[in-house]
Amino acid sequence: MRRMSAAAASPTFVRSDHLILGGSAVAIALAAITHFTGSGDVLPFICSAAAVALLASLVGRSVEQLGDRFGPGATGVLQSALGNLPELFICLFALNSGLVEVVQAALIGSILANLLFVMGLAFVVGGLKHGTQKLDSERARQIIVLMVLSVVAMVIPSLAHYTHAPAADHEKTLSLFVSVILIVLFFLSLPASLRRSTTASEPQMEHEPPRWPVALAVGMLAVAAGAAALVSDWFVQALEPAMDAAGISDAFAGLVIVAIAGNAVENVVGIQLAAAGRSEYAFSVVINSPLQISLVLAPVLVICSQIFGLASLTLVFSPMLVASVGLAVMLAAVITFDGESNWLEGAALIAVYAVIASSFWWG
Amino acid sequence: MRRMSAAAASPTFVRSDHLILGGSAVAIALAAITHFTGSGDVLPFICSAAAVALLASLVGRSVEQLGDRFGPGATGVLQSALGNLPELFICLFALNSGLVEVVQAALIGSILANLLFVMGLAFVVGGLKHGTQKLDSERARQIIVLMVLSVVAMVIPSLAHYTHAPAADHEKTLSLFVSVILIVLFFLSLPASLRRSTTASEPQMEHEPPRWPVALAVGMLAVAAGAAALVSDWFVQALEPAMDAAGISDAFAGLVIVAIAGNAVENVVGIQLAAAGRSEYAFSVVINSPLQISLVLAPVLVICSQIFGLASLTLVFSPMLVASVGLAVMLAAVITFDGESNWLEGAALIAVYAVIASSFWWG
Amino acid sequence: MRRMSAAAASPTFVRSDHLILGGSAVAIALAAITHFTGSGDVLPFICSAAAVALLASLVGRSVEQLGDRFGPGATGVLQSALGNLPELFICLFALNSGLVEVVQAALIGSILANLLFVMGLAFVVGGLKHGTQKLDSERARQIIVLMVLSVVAMVIPSLAHYTHAPAADHEKTLSLFVSVILIVLFFLSLPASLRRSTTASEPQMEHEPPRWPVALAVGMLAVAAGAAALVSDWFVQALEPAMDAAGISDAFAGLVIVAIAGNAVENVVGIQLAAAGRSEYAFSVVINSPLQISLVLAPVLVICSQIFGLASLTLVFSPMLVASVGLAVMLAAVITFDGESNWLEGAALIAVYAVIASSFWWG
Repeated sequence: MRRMSAAAASPTFVRSDHLILGGSAVAIALAAITHFTGSGDVLPFICSAAAVALLASLVGRSVEQLGDRFGPGATGVLQSALGNLPELFICLFALNSGLVEVVQAALIGSILANLLFVMGLAFVVGGLKHGTQKLDSERARQIIVLMVLSVVAMVIPSLAHYTHAPAADHEKTLSLFVSVILIVLFFLSLPASLRRSTTASEPQMEHEPPRWPVALAVGMLAVAAGAAALVSDWFVQALEPAMDAAGISDAFAGLVIVAIAGNAVENVVGIQLAAAGRSEYAFSVVINSPLQISLVLAPVLVICSQIFGLASLTLVFSPMLVASVGLAVMLAAVITFDGESNWLEGAALIAVYAVIASSFWWG
Repeated sequence: MRRMSAAAASPTFVRSDHLILGGSAVAIALAAITHFTGSGDVLPFICSAAAVALLASLVGRSVEQLGDRFGPGATGVLQSALGNLPELFICLFALNSGLVEVVQAALIGSILANLLFVMGLAFVVGGLKHGTQKLDSERARQIIVLMVLSVVAMVIPSLAHYTHAPAADHEKTLSLFVSVILIVLFFLSLPASLRRSTTASEPQMEHEPPRWPVALAVGMLAVAAGAAALVSDWFVQALEPAMDAAGISDAFAGLVIVAIAGNAVENVVGIQLAAAGRSEYAFSVVINSPLQISLVLAPVLVICSQIFGLASLTLVFSPMLVASVGLAVMLAAVITFDGESNWLEGAALIAVYAVIASSFWWG
Repeated sequence: MRRMSAAAASPTFVRSDHLILGGSAVAIALAAITHFTGSGDVLPFICSAAAVALLASLVGRSVEQLGDRFGPGATGVLQSALGNLPELFICLFALNSGLVEVVQAALIGSILANLLFVMGLAFVVGGLKHGTQKLDSERARQIIVLMVLSVVAMVIPSLAHYTHAPAADHEKTLSLFVSVILIVLFFLSLPASLRRSTTASEPQMEHEPPRWPVALAVGMLAVAAGAAALVSDWFVQALEPAMDAAGISDAFAGLVIVAIAGNAVENVVGIQLAAAGRSEYAFSVVINSPLQISLVLAPVLVICSQIFGLASLTLVFSPMLVASVGLAVMLAAVITFDGESNWLEGAALIAVYAVIASSFWWG
């Protein structure tokens, strides 16, 4: 099936590698210049946001190139573990600066952006080019069931808080308990993720033979991760002045801007797959990302915020965030079980996203 | 397929036309007499309610007779746009009289009445006559997915209000924004509605050859719409004295009485179809009506209330209305995806409707 | 199909009968001794809890042995009516002692324990032994649709209360009205239950030829029920001292401990069926129990509490109980419509149960 001869003849760097590497270098340089020269409020923010998005893409590419050496399944596991690395850095620096509200909004916003906005765009693009598309793979339903379960666990501390249950006085302990449970679930879900990527019927895209030598892939991953950490710091520092200058509230900044900057590349991949008519694969890419946020990113941040003495992050989200994520997950479940998508459903999803985002517009 | 010769030989007015026309004339006359002579509190209300229901039916009949001349799809579009015309008039007059609570309850009540009460009756009637019935057509699932999405968008301003999100201070602006989005979705949904009615597998009922000349249909539509506007005014004027006389709260009046009077005829059609064993078609008729309420009627009323300086209508519904419509839509989704109905599910739906209505009984 | 000769040769009491009878006798004796001698706070509780669980099993066994004489369908009806008998006794005695919060938590807790914990265990056991298992039988979907509808009806009084709807001032009346409606639904659902057990494709387990003579079965049922009533009283009396000694809150005691003690045997049956690879049957056993709680046990308790002048029980549950049962039923619906289970979903269900239970831990 694999054209090994073609793979052997393929160069180490292809065109898209050059674009990502070059783009990252330019964006980091611009971010550094605007950061250290203090070029106004908005320019440092835009440059560092672009650098974060490109470095996120570079991390993803390095993991891809690395993973196949250790068997096809390992890619999935590494991607699950490292895919949200840049977002993790941003949130850690934001917590370090006391921006708890931004981080909470960004966590929920990443779930909303994937389940509503990106899924909507994928349906519109796929639907307009290919008509009504099938979604109802067993893989998608497994992911969505796990996501519903993990999001329900994640919102219990908020429900206890807002229903004034006695547990509301112990929200830090309850949040830590839920976080540990979610991380245990993540480890339990790894075998299924491994099996999914191994048996996936998408050989040509998922198992493209790696072009980079192992040393290059590992080195690139280390460099990209380090640079992402550095630039995330600048991004967080630039965030507040930029939001103030533009008159944007903390909640909206986290919910929409940080969430979309942190997931930009994964989002593009989902939409490209939909445009290529591979709706089932696109769908499982789009819904896998929010699953990782609720199973890994949110609990890791809660635990880190306690261990490293950062601003205390709990799983008690503002009630509008809880309502939004509940509705988004329910809509995703309805759409998954419907088993078909068309551009009109996509437009309606984007409309729901716009309405929810607009309700966070005012500060 | 169409028996054109039979159609050519068919008379302009059939028996049911005569019943609707005669009934409308008598009801309007009685409504006028009781309205202008001030015959107590209850009689004017009953007569005007009957007249509104019959005129709603006449509007529907005129649109049917008109639509086929412009191709079968146009019927669907016209019905979508004009089907809720009498309810629109009632709500506009009610807003003009400052009855905001009645209008909000009537909007949600129309959705509840269709999704719970009428659907329940259709399941009971169809189930008792024909046993377990199939529902799971692609058409029904498309409608239900759109309805879930539009109802979610419609309740966001209420959620923002009750969660004390900052947007709660801008609820008029947020309601207008959501209304515009919903109307855009309605126009985007027209091609799919057109396609649905064109490809529908129900030729004999939907594409009955029109008997009325175009001029008659247009004239009848204009007369019926004008009369509906006139009688709606009387109905709204009679509503408050009648409710006071009967000791019924504003919320219950809107939720149950206005909602059922305004949808009486569509409701009967859905139940007749179920009785005839055409469960899938009955189901899509019953769930299409609430979709139009959330996509057209509610947003048009919000926008009109601002433009025409009526009592200000926003999409901030009372929390019990929000909870009820959320549960009703979720139940409709569960039942649609179940794909089968029987009389017991119908009885349970009616039970849920009775329980919700009873919770609005006290003023 | 039935091997009547084998049945005729089979003894009146089999090994499992001896275990249940002997166990019950020993447990009742120990419960009586610890109850009347006042042996500390914890021992009487443990002994009476074990006795209740074993007597619940004996009631179930007697009904099984009795039912088949009156046709296979009658078993289902009797089991529906008597299956929750021990839990009914416990709740009545608890109401008599004024433990309203414990009873409300136990009602919701029994639903949660079945839908989350027991279903989760069944999925883990079945999934680890037999891999991914099918659930999507028509029977399961019928039960789940009814359960969603009945739980929605059951929570309306709570929603009216917490949304400060005017009906909140009439919560006793509203609770009674809802209870009557739910019991009517239960009687309406009996024909379907009868048909289900008659046409069930599980002949060897459900229609095992009865070994006990009618008189023995009736007598055993009467004795077991009487003993259950007696021991339930001891159990309730032992509950509060034991909870105080262990520092457990009323809500947690009801939600977890009473709920699991009252359903212990049904729970074991569900898990045994899953272990035997009969996932569809296990699933319908596990979800049938909470359906009976919302259709029979809760409304009967509400009505009895008014008639017998016990502590007034309404259907206004604490908001966290409402949120929990709403989420649990929604999860059960998602999993039923998914149509497949695996051990990972089971682990996630247990995780959600642990998280919800933990949120009730603090008093």
